[in-house]
Amino acid sequence: MNPIIAEVTIVPLGTSSPSLSAYVAEVERVLSKYSHIKSLLTPMSTILEGDLDEVLGIIREMHEVPFSKGVQRVSTRISIDDRRDKQISMHSKLEAVKSKR
Amino acid sequence: MNPIIAEVTIVPLGTSSPSLSAYVAEVERVLSKYSHIKSLLTPMSTILEGDLDEVLGIIREMHEVPFSKGVQRVSTRISIDDRRDKQISMHSKLEAVKSKR
Amino acid sequence: MNPIIAEVTIVPLGTSSPSLSAYVAEVERVLSKYSHIKSLLTPMSTILEGDLDEVLGIIREMHEVPFSKGVQRVSTRISIDDRRDKQISMHSKLEAVKSKR
Amino acid sequence: MNPIIAEVTIVPLGTSSPSLSAYVAEVERVLSKYSHIKSLLTPMSTILEGDLDEVLGIIREMHEVPFSKGVQRVSTRISIDDRRDKQISMHSKLEAVKSKR
Repeated sequence: MNPIIAEVTIVPLGTSSPSLSAYVAEVERVLSKYSHIKSLLTPMSTILEGDLDEVLGIIREMHEVPFSKGVQRVSTRISIDDRRDKQISMHSKLEAVKSKR
Repeated sequence: MNPIIAEVTIVPLGTSSPSLSAYVAEVERVLSKYSHIKSLLTPMSTILEGDLDEVLGIIREMHEVPFSKGVQRVSTRISIDDRRDKQISMHSKLEAVKSKR
Repeated sequence: MNPIIAEVTIVPLGTSSPSLSAYVAEVERVLSKYSHIKSLLTPMSTILEGDLDEVLGIIREMHEVPFSKGVQRVSTRISIDDRRDKQISMHSKLEAVKSKR
Repeated sequence: MNPIIAEVTIVPLGTSSPSLSAYVAEVERVLSKYSHIKSLLTPMSTILEGDLDEVLGIIREMHEVPFSKGVQRVSTRISIDDRRDKQISMHSKLEAVKSKR
């Protein structure tokens, strides 16, 4: 297994209010089903760590959530960091930077 | 069928040269197998139009290409525009903007 | 002068309709004042070519447009490609890929 | 003052090694000069909170760092969240989601 780190931001468009946190909370609920997938909520995104295909499947499911709440258009951005010469994790990436400060 | 528009940029990291066009050309070759999927090469990305799951599968395949050329780390960014109140296309999106200029 | 290529997407949030093309058209109007800056409208973004500081200034001005139309929240994404070992352009980047196909 | 939240990822290209943490650590050093700007290092980015023009100026300075270390090409991605109907912060955005879980 080669874990990747992926960052995802799911933005509902055409909601009448600029407040989007209720949608974000609903999207996050998907993650509770996948307790073996490490996740981190940041002020701008959700970061996931796990097998690439499984993570893409979870993101696919997250992307569907705003539509189920009546939203008509969703903009989803994904950024994948996939390194294969050594195993990476959210933790190891942060530690590598901090150790060089 | 609900076609989505997706933009993808696949960036090989740790290549010794800053020239990446040979990798991009190799990644683009994946698209030749999918002649029913509309695609547009821009100076910053590849834009795809088609069914969301099929497009994600193609992007998954594109992401693998640099590794098969010896690259050890790949950063892939995807941006999905999924609208369900009306059918969109790369063409209709451009026309909608141009008609309002 | 070292021209960079920048891709920008300016997304108004909390608009009542999922149609955003009227905002995009208004944002594009900013570019008509900068005829020496090359620009390309794609189905997902606007790509600009020029001096980095000037391009950032133009993007700053584009970012302000939806607010002037009553929007209360704007999500702006910028991607900058800055290469300094050789001069790049939107045209040369596309040609480099096509020549290797 | 209207604080915005911006996420930035600065990726050096054409480095011979796929390890980039030394560059990230160097880029982060820029922030030590701006103690009034809140920042958060995540496994995928740096998130900044402050005045839009000041934050863009800091990102401009961060973007220059890899070049000063001999890198020939830098890919910088910025995502700005600018809300003007109410004041937002990194903290308030996280709390808004957590309170709705």
